[in-house]
Amino acid sequence: MIYLDNAATTMRKPQEVVDAVVAAMGSLGNAGRGASAGALDAGRVVLRAREAVATLLGCPRADHVCFSANATAALNAALSGLVGPGDRVVTTVLEHNSVLRPLARLADERGVEVAYAGCDAYGFLDMDELERLVTPGTRLVAVTHGSNVTGNLVDVARVARIAHAVGALCLVDASQTAGAVPLDMAATGVDVVCFTGHKGLMGPQGTGGMAVADGVDVRPWAEGGSGVHSFERRHPLEWPTRLEAGTLNAHGLAGLAAGIAFVEKNGGPAAVGAREHELARRLWEGVADVPGVTVYGGWAVAPERCGGIVALNVDGLDSAEVADALSSGWGIACRAGAHCAPLMHRALGTEQQGIVRLSCGWFTTENEVDVAAAAIREIAAG
Amino acid sequence: MIYLDNAATTMRKPQEVVDAVVAAMGSLGNAGRGASAGALDAGRVVLRAREAVATLLGCPRADHVCFSANATAALNAALSGLVGPGDRVVTTVLEHNSVLRPLARLADERGVEVAYAGCDAYGFLDMDELERLVTPGTRLVAVTHGSNVTGNLVDVARVARIAHAVGALCLVDASQTAGAVPLDMAATGVDVVCFTGHKGLMGPQGTGGMAVADGVDVRPWAEGGSGVHSFERRHPLEWPTRLEAGTLNAHGLAGLAAGIAFVEKNGGPAAVGAREHELARRLWEGVADVPGVTVYGGWAVAPERCGGIVALNVDGLDSAEVADALSSGWGIACRAGAHCAPLMHRALGTEQQGIVRLSCGWFTTENEVDVAAAAIREIAAG
Repeated sequence: MIYLDNAATTMRKPQEVVDAVVAAMGSLGNAGRGASAGALDAGRVVLRAREAVATLLGCPRADHVCFSANATAALNAALSGLVGPGDRVVTTVLEHNSVLRPLARLADERGVEVAYAGCDAYGFLDMDELERLVTPGTRLVAVTHGSNVTGNLVDVARVARIAHAVGALCLVDASQTAGAVPLDMAATGVDVVCFTGHKGLMGPQGTGGMAVADGVDVRPWAEGGSGVHSFERRHPLEWPTRLEAGTLNAHGLAGLAAGIAFVEKNGGPAAVGAREHELARRLWEGVADVPGVTVYGGWAVAPERCGGIVALNVDGLDSAEVADALSSGWGIACRAGAHCAPLMHRALGTEQQGIVRLSCGWFTTENEVDVAAAAIREIAAG
Repeated sequence: MIYLDNAATTMRKPQEVVDAVVAAMGSLGNAGRGASAGALDAGRVVLRAREAVATLLGCPRADHVCFSANATAALNAALSGLVGPGDRVVTTVLEHNSVLRPLARLADERGVEVAYAGCDAYGFLDMDELERLVTPGTRLVAVTHGSNVTGNLVDVARVARIAHAVGALCLVDASQTAGAVPLDMAATGVDVVCFTGHKGLMGPQGTGGMAVADGVDVRPWAEGGSGVHSFERRHPLEWPTRLEAGTLNAHGLAGLAAGIAFVEKNGGPAAVGAREHELARRLWEGVADVPGVTVYGGWAVAPERCGGIVALNVDGLDSAEVADALSSGWGIACRAGAHCAPLMHRALGTEQQGIVRLSCGWFTTENEVDVAAAAIREIAAG
């Protein structure tokens, strides 16, 4: 199989990640629950994962890295915990449903006002419109670091400056970029970063979380067992407990820490991202001028702001037909259809056709993208 | 190490569980995201886990088994999704903070009225008081299937009858019992069962969920990507998607299915629970008459309603001192202190001292509990 669906999950994991999970499953108790050797070992594993994420994201406080099941859980918690009744939130048409739907709920249930900045014809965020929308009194600006449809990147440092200029907070959805695009919270001023563990960080599924800048208050989302302050009626507010109710996935977090270590060992997000970028560029070059192929995203105009994705369609074919042909003809795994980003599809005019998304990862080879490009050419030739 | 903290997590996992996770980490894509072979394989793994849970719990519909990070997440979702403004909920002093705190929040935020049924001197639920509290108009009765402090079991079939007599729903927290105490939703009429995967089901951490009877409506908790209906503004209401936002932990769920298969292979929850019960009884018999040892729970009066736990204190010693002595002197891992069940500790008068909880699992041996009993006797002798 040629696996080009790394934007959905990095299916191939480093051996170190598998080994770390296996070791954890043979030795760990319940982190933060008692003082037995197994419980303390689990606590240390979780702490190492916190420190790894904090270092990766430039988050000054490891105890402000809070783990959850996935990026969606973190985004629900962060948005609900930051935004109050009647607040104004500015977001973008690039966002995934994991941002859009929690905001829609806040609009319905708390009267939150949500404004959406658009994009240009290539799918790049319209930063000028965003700046106009971020009016004084705005509570939060929530943006993706990279579109999960096109791979187009967002200058989150600039978004943070725009937000801070009016006293708003800046939340970044790094689901598509953590581990593959550098992000330094301290340097950029980004207030909250939500991430998943099973994509660019190469960890297991069931891991993710948020990193929160010092002084930013995120109210608890789930409440429950905390291992500390058992006699408090409501969930404790201390970090990181406030955003972690119930047993942590220490088995998975052992793997996440190993995944981050693998990224760092290979040069960190800049180097890993550069490799994925070069593979995607090679793929794009193989299909860019093919008659009948429409490529979305910014490769033709600003490749330096593109990630490891090539998003395309073949004229006259539903995206699922192309994906099926790639699979049956060449053993290529990719993703077609809608990508949980409805406003992005509307902006690109691909609500009906969907989009064929080919996404590269660390383990993707040049030969694999060459095969994929040749396959697309053959499909387009009919 | 002698591991007697199985009520916190079953640290030792069957080899089949580890093997299943390793296989999953080498082959699965993102369940429900696209139609690539890896994504479809992940979907099949998740479906098998759903079917395994549904069979185990007697839930007629596998698509009403919804997975989450842990039992706490499931309980937050279930309680929030079942209870509306001004509703009346009856619960018990046996509950864990994963039930008590979400209910406290609903009381604060939605004006929900919460009543607490007490227990007798042995920690058994006062079923008569519960029945009195379940008045007409009560929306929900939420009870644990077994106390995480004492191991005392609750007759949930009777609770369900009491609830249904006034038109209320019955939610059971099976965190401590799933896999070790039979529970048949169809036979008992229990409406919602919340469970964790990493205790009696012998699965990995990061797994859990809820099983919901047909016709019971649980509103969505988290919202986000669903893999279906991308263009709906709010999270889709179809099962099981309505209670599963974002990428599922298919790696962990592969292990959960293997853990449930291990339980079934060994005779199912009745047989596994009987073994744990006999081990705990043996431990109890070794400490019951020791001067200076106080045993909590129902072993002396109704052992047939006891699980795999022996909860005790040694006069004059903080529970943490006893746990430390067990660890340093005999290599015994247990749990001391408060156990996230504040009302249970109040009822037993152990708020200050805490409780030493020794909990048996499938892999516990008779020799191990004999060593533990001898150790307690030696500690009590000073």
